[in-house]
Amino acid sequence: MPILSRSADEWLLGRISKAIEPAPIRIVLGNEAATTTVENPVATVIIPDRKTLLRLMFDAEVAFGDAYADGSIQVQGSLVKLLEAIYQARSREGPNGPLYPRLASKWMHWLQANTLPGSRRNIHAHYDLGNDFYKLWLDRQLVYTCAYFPTPTATLEQAQTAKLDHICRKLRLQPGETVVEAGCGWGALALHMARQYGVSVKAFNVSHEQIAFARQRAQEEGLSHQVEFIEDDYRNISGKFDVFASVGMLEHVGVENFKDLADAVQRSIGASGRGLFHFIGKDQPGAYSRWMRKRIFPGAYIPALRQALEIFERWNYSVLDVENLRHHYAKTLEHWLDRFEKTQQQVASMYDSEFVRAWRLYLAGSMAAFRCGSLQLFQVVFTGSRCPPVWWTRAPLYSETQSESEKPEWMHAMS
Amino acid sequence: MPILSRSADEWLLGRISKAIEPAPIRIVLGNEAATTTVENPVATVIIPDRKTLLRLMFDAEVAFGDAYADGSIQVQGSLVKLLEAIYQARSREGPNGPLYPRLASKWMHWLQANTLPGSRRNIHAHYDLGNDFYKLWLDRQLVYTCAYFPTPTATLEQAQTAKLDHICRKLRLQPGETVVEAGCGWGALALHMARQYGVSVKAFNVSHEQIAFARQRAQEEGLSHQVEFIEDDYRNISGKFDVFASVGMLEHVGVENFKDLADAVQRSIGASGRGLFHFIGKDQPGAYSRWMRKRIFPGAYIPALRQALEIFERWNYSVLDVENLRHHYAKTLEHWLDRFEKTQQQVASMYDSEFVRAWRLYLAGSMAAFRCGSLQLFQVVFTGSRCPPVWWTRAPLYSETQSESEKPEWMHAMS
Repeated sequence: MPILSRSADEWLLGRISKAIEPAPIRIVLGNEAATTTVENPVATVIIPDRKTLLRLMFDAEVAFGDAYADGSIQVQGSLVKLLEAIYQARSREGPNGPLYPRLASKWMHWLQANTLPGSRRNIHAHYDLGNDFYKLWLDRQLVYTCAYFPTPTATLEQAQTAKLDHICRKLRLQPGETVVEAGCGWGALALHMARQYGVSVKAFNVSHEQIAFARQRAQEEGLSHQVEFIEDDYRNISGKFDVFASVGMLEHVGVENFKDLADAVQRSIGASGRGLFHFIGKDQPGAYSRWMRKRIFPGAYIPALRQALEIFERWNYSVLDVENLRHHYAKTLEHWLDRFEKTQQQVASMYDSEFVRAWRLYLAGSMAAFRCGSLQLFQVVFTGSRCPPVWWTRAPLYSETQSESEKPEWMHAMS
Repeated sequence: MPILSRSADEWLLGRISKAIEPAPIRIVLGNEAATTTVENPVATVIIPDRKTLLRLMFDAEVAFGDAYADGSIQVQGSLVKLLEAIYQARSREGPNGPLYPRLASKWMHWLQANTLPGSRRNIHAHYDLGNDFYKLWLDRQLVYTCAYFPTPTATLEQAQTAKLDHICRKLRLQPGETVVEAGCGWGALALHMARQYGVSVKAFNVSHEQIAFARQRAQEEGLSHQVEFIEDDYRNISGKFDVFASVGMLEHVGVENFKDLADAVQRSIGASGRGLFHFIGKDQPGAYSRWMRKRIFPGAYIPALRQALEIFERWNYSVLDVENLRHHYAKTLEHWLDRFEKTQQQVASMYDSEFVRAWRLYLAGSMAAFRCGSLQLFQVVFTGSRCPPVWWTRAPLYSETQSESEKPEWMHAMS
């Protein structure tokens, strides 16, 4: 029944097209067996067969991600613009989607729970893929979080250094102070703090590869006496410090563990300390993409800003400053994606072409999400109730000179 | 039984002293009938009789406030330091105090509910006390919210103008844009926006006296065509605008009405607009001082920052920037208290000496609360999901030039 069959395909395509309305995306089934008509499409999605079409109806996100990764779904045109258009269209949806994806999301959350061993597994799966892989497309310092572009034309290297500095200035680090870092990546921030600001840092991370790399860098730079890299979980942080810093770790903690993180902050810096969290956040609570958790970041949860504030509320910390840098993350991802595409043959030879496509989808999808506001990037500075004032106004963050004198006039004005 | 009686008094004093430990405050009963011994006290509280002492035991805050206001309790030394020491001592307490004050707090909340007529009554009780009274101790523009001191030695007049400008810069107002203001006081911000930034403003307020004053100012300045002052509730805001601004109103809304406020924002600026809330907030949720609600601000509720974020979350607004200016409010109150003390004879002749003492306690208590962190001052900038980027970095907020050119380079970088 080729005619009946054809109209069934068209009906299915129409349903999908309707679900992503008004995204200007052309959808083509197989060898032009059926197509949707869209004026000025930003991209064309080629779906190989009716089986894939039915999967998309049933569990859109994971089916699309998996079929894009295995090469059965093809995209012509801009992948970033395609995903941006879909995210924008879907932002009108309420929190309640179809039943199956919701149940599957909860099941996955349980499977990938961030217990102590669970976190180690989850982090290992992503961050221990091999330092050589990340060196291909990250900046020279291997900073794998949102950069800070003083101007949009700054290079990625400049922007990552500017970010490290922006954080140190926000924290107003003083020589001789002690810092604990929760989730330190390949160690760039801890080393920057020690080198440029004369502080001592204890930096925690459960990624074995990252810690090994960071330790070697500290040694090479002669900073081992100032920076200690510890392969352990944030829940096991011990000791007293002036400052608590965490950049790009909160996304791996999960709201159910925010209490534990808050307790770690309180144990470390008490009421007299100050700190900074830098994390991907959202405007409203909701589960993180299931495909991303399946393929890229097991155990990840992106909190709404309001949820993240529970961490500070628990022990009566004051929020001093929040800065949203989502456009800077879109720009960062633009650089990463560009570098990734240029080295894709090397990546394919390290892994395979499915890995390349999955990672392209992750980088392009994240870039699209930051562009259209599905994801946000927050830097939050907080202080304990007995912490001396960190600044009088934020103006020194934007002046040429690194910081004001040790005991500026405004401190007298407040005592 | 004078001896037994004396030891009972000492026991009661000891209990009170214990409750405010380790605040270095000396307490004296009557004519030195009993005293506590404290090294280097910041102040001495003289309690007239055992009846007042018992009231303090039963319902400390309201009893102290009322007895200070009626002159029966006297304070020697610094009232601000006294209150700061008490707030710091009490900050260790959990949310559950004695039963009576908690029940009385709920009862008061119900009595002073911010229904449409309730809000009008509550606002009338404070803001319609008489413009001549407020002219005695506020700045020339009558700005009755936290100022922004570029340096701590700026004058109050300079700091209030700087605050108005700081808000306009954060909102990046462009000539020809439309602004709705919820709770406009005596109109200073609306007039500043129109005069300095060329925007049109509709400003809402339920205080009759303030609206009348603001309208006259608009007329005198020839700005009536650009600024419309409307005597109505924020819940009745209608029309479409580019920008929503609210400075010092959220404290009078109450969390139970945050939904209504969120809906007013959404109706006014939709997904393409931007806005700013400036409000007194806290680190953790909890009822506002019952004495303050009884004597100074009926119906007031000071939200935790996390509670305030519910307003933005409801309609998917993104938080772009949060700045905590609590030290600026302490400084503002220092100016107000100083001016108030200098004009207290005039205030006493307008009202009476009980009024003077109650208002001194309110101003000194607020100053102490901002100094020690019981209260915070938050400015939150937020944007709709389709709002064009407001800035690339915050640096232009701190540069000499008012704003960047109409379509700066970074905007191209993001489109």
